[in-house]
Amino acid sequence: MVKIKVISVGKTKESWIKEGLSHYQKLLKKYAELQLVEIKEEKITKSRAAEYILDAEAERISKHVDASGLSVALDRTGEKLSSESLARWLGEKQNSGHSQFTFILGGALGLSHRVLSTCAFRLSLSRMTFTHEMSLVILLEQIYRAFSILKGTKYHK
Amino acid sequence: MVKIKVISVGKTKESWIKEGLSHYQKLLKKYAELQLVEIKEEKITKSRAAEYILDAEAERISKHVDASGLSVALDRTGEKLSSESLARWLGEKQNSGHSQFTFILGGALGLSHRVLSTCAFRLSLSRMTFTHEMSLVILLEQIYRAFSILKGTKYHK
Repeated sequence: MVKIKVISVGKTKESWIKEGLSHYQKLLKKYAELQLVEIKEEKITKSRAAEYILDAEAERISKHVDASGLSVALDRTGEKLSSESLARWLGEKQNSGHSQFTFILGGALGLSHRVLSTCAFRLSLSRMTFTHEMSLVILLEQIYRAFSILKGTKYHK
Repeated sequence: MVKIKVISVGKTKESWIKEGLSHYQKLLKKYAELQLVEIKEEKITKSRAAEYILDAEAERISKHVDASGLSVALDRTGEKLSSESLARWLGEKQNSGHSQFTFILGGALGLSHRVLSTCAFRLSLSRMTFTHEMSLVILLEQIYRAFSILKGTKYHK
């Protein structure tokens, strides 16, 4: 079974978002072994350089990234794929032997270059800015949708 | 106070989505008089032409559209605006005297040409396909974000 890890910087606080996440976690069990890892966000203060914060978060992220997997960074300047294109990418990578994927969603300041440089590609959900918590639900739904597209179920039809 | 009406075809079923909607409905009270209208979706069956379904839904939508307001259709082929551009559009229209805006989110088959032709513009949330229910939450959040941008609050910073 495909292994999907989603690493998210920051803890989910809103109860309705938590419910949404567990909704898609349950659905995804059909298609993948999903692991959702929420890591601690660094406090943003005026005296701390953005670089320092991103480096500290990168350090924590790196502990959860499996070198054998393919990583995708969520990044607002990334590629704006359609759901079908994301599914195609996932399908092609599986066909060429990949069975482990890591999606990384940064905190308020995004992701450090160090993290970005290790990713196979950068994905943007939209030109619009979403809250971090909503991006996480949207990402899980898109991963579920990608598998549904690959399996040809009626979910995406 | 600005009046915002959101017309959505189909009833929201997921409890976490309902909670998300009421979260943003509460937040929006600061900026606008918001009315969320969920209208009945037509049943899709093999024997019914898409046109028939869209016409029936258009009929119901039209009862809630105020001729004096500006309408925006949510449409996947529409303009993919950033949150800042949506805010700018809303601000410019308010500056030129508009105080009533209607956002229309169609059902599974989208919106009829009749509805689309009466709208000031067509807005697309993303190249990705989202569920109808999630699109509705995203839309409310984007409207809240647009006002936050116009007011210069820290929500969008």
